[in-house]
Amino acid sequence: MPALAVTFDDVARAAERLRGVAHRTPAITSATLDERTGAQVFLKAENLQRMGAFKFRGAYNRLVQLDPAARARGVVAFSSGNHAQGVALAAKLLGIPAAIVMPTDAPAAKLAATRGYGAEVVLYDRFTMNRAEIAQTLAAERGATLVPPFDDPAIIAGQGTAALELIEDVGPLDVLLVCTGGGGLLSGCALAATKLSPGIAVYGVEPEAGDDWVQSLARNERVTIPVPDTIADGMQTQSPGELTFPIVQALCAGVVTVSDEELRDAMRFAFERLKLVIEPSGVAGLAAALTGRVDVRGKRVGVTLSGGNIDAATFARLIA
Amino acid sequence: MPALAVTFDDVARAAERLRGVAHRTPAITSATLDERTGAQVFLKAENLQRMGAFKFRGAYNRLVQLDPAARARGVVAFSSGNHAQGVALAAKLLGIPAAIVMPTDAPAAKLAATRGYGAEVVLYDRFTMNRAEIAQTLAAERGATLVPPFDDPAIIAGQGTAALELIEDVGPLDVLLVCTGGGGLLSGCALAATKLSPGIAVYGVEPEAGDDWVQSLARNERVTIPVPDTIADGMQTQSPGELTFPIVQALCAGVVTVSDEELRDAMRFAFERLKLVIEPSGVAGLAAALTGRVDVRGKRVGVTLSGGNIDAATFARLIA
Repeated sequence: MPALAVTFDDVARAAERLRGVAHRTPAITSATLDERTGAQVFLKAENLQRMGAFKFRGAYNRLVQLDPAARARGVVAFSSGNHAQGVALAAKLLGIPAAIVMPTDAPAAKLAATRGYGAEVVLYDRFTMNRAEIAQTLAAERGATLVPPFDDPAIIAGQGTAALELIEDVGPLDVLLVCTGGGGLLSGCALAATKLSPGIAVYGVEPEAGDDWVQSLARNERVTIPVPDTIADGMQTQSPGELTFPIVQALCAGVVTVSDEELRDAMRFAFERLKLVIEPSGVAGLAAALTGRVDVRGKRVGVTLSGGNIDAATFARLIA
Repeated sequence: MPALAVTFDDVARAAERLRGVAHRTPAITSATLDERTGAQVFLKAENLQRMGAFKFRGAYNRLVQLDPAARARGVVAFSSGNHAQGVALAAKLLGIPAAIVMPTDAPAAKLAATRGYGAEVVLYDRFTMNRAEIAQTLAAERGATLVPPFDDPAIIAGQGTAALELIEDVGPLDVLLVCTGGGGLLSGCALAATKLSPGIAVYGVEPEAGDDWVQSLARNERVTIPVPDTIADGMQTQSPGELTFPIVQALCAGVVTVSDEELRDAMRFAFERLKLVIEPSGVAGLAAALTGRVDVRGKRVGVTLSGGNIDAATFARLIA
């Protein structure tokens, strides 16, 4: 097996850097959820993370390692939302200028929050323009550092601290269900979980309409799909990452899909029974547990609740 | 000063009984909230408590002390909602039959949840009938134990464990803001907080339309008001409790009011920035901090988020 681009030690070092900066989010349990799933479930509530999603972990771990000259030239990121806010907040805390390339149809709350953290927002049309190219051009013009949303060793290592904390807090797990877009959270969590809880089965969970991971794992190569039409706006990636894919291939038990309706059911469950606001992309792991898409009966199960950034109107519509 | 009906030791013993049964809910912090208030705020997230509110603490502490004969005869409770669910869940866990007297206009989610815990629900019209009488008659007929919502030493002691845990977890506080209906949570938390954090200023917070506490404290006697018209359905009590009033008089710095619009603003803040579902009655303390009704600038402030049981439709309307 070729060496992976990121190791457990990178995750452990990221955890040191994030100590006292990121929230150590609670591991939430629910008797109702345990009854419904037949499992013992521990929810890593990253919706309660700073800026409302796990993305702060990776962004801060990346930015804090920039040298003074690079910090002065600033950072550029492209994101459908939470990565934008993560980079914006990390940049603000570190005094780094940040420009964020965001789609015109990103949720208003995410646009406002990104600007609220003091970042410059550069808008583009998600269906006709290539955000990576726009961001690369912008970064080249300014000499700024491009901070990709997932395909970066420091980003991956930072996201993995979510699983590291969860297992430190609740002990070994049999199964870990991780919300999966580009695979930054999944690959990072797989690095942490397989080290700290040997024998654990780590699964990614992605939307049915955007099953680039399922297709890619089946073919043993990265498949590119059209922009998926799903309520999970944080999971509209078109293909697994170059760095994240081999980590997932090497360490994960698989990736499963859930439908938009199952995401809505899980959002309603989180609202009614957990009293948590979770965005559609953030409940994918919970949906996999509730639907039995991954068989968790009788097991100790970790689930990432990856974010809670959603407009009031959209939330109201989806839980209605 | 006459001896109070409940002591700190009662709260400490309740904490022992609740260990491993109630959730030790997290103390949540938010940089945005600290910026907005100029304070260092620690939110005791009792919306994440079992059955979605602090009421489980008092109910369990009361029911677990019943002897076997009393357990067999069952319990009766009257409640606009969360106390009902607290008693129903505690009764279920202890194998005690429970009948709950609830208003016909209680939120559907609360009626359903109470029945879901296996309790018998007895409905009454809140504007024309006296729930206490109905419950007393029912209890007398069955030889069951009446479990009042707040005016009971074991209930008060149980609720106080919320403040006990918060101060154990985050250290001494300068101010504690407590959501106040009948005063069970306020009096219990005052007993815990003034013992564990000497010099702390404990404030109750009630809705403007239902200012029975403010009036009663001003007159030094318990005043009874009409059923208040407020969105805070858990705070529609008409007068302070016989046991809770002297405790609050002796230990609290005061009670302040917030308007329904301020409760809505606080609910929106909790949704947008904290990613938490809080019912109107549950954000009263947060509203007092956000509005500056209690001056918290430069202080270490504890705030109870007392519950999160609310219908999806009502929640959607209130955060719109």
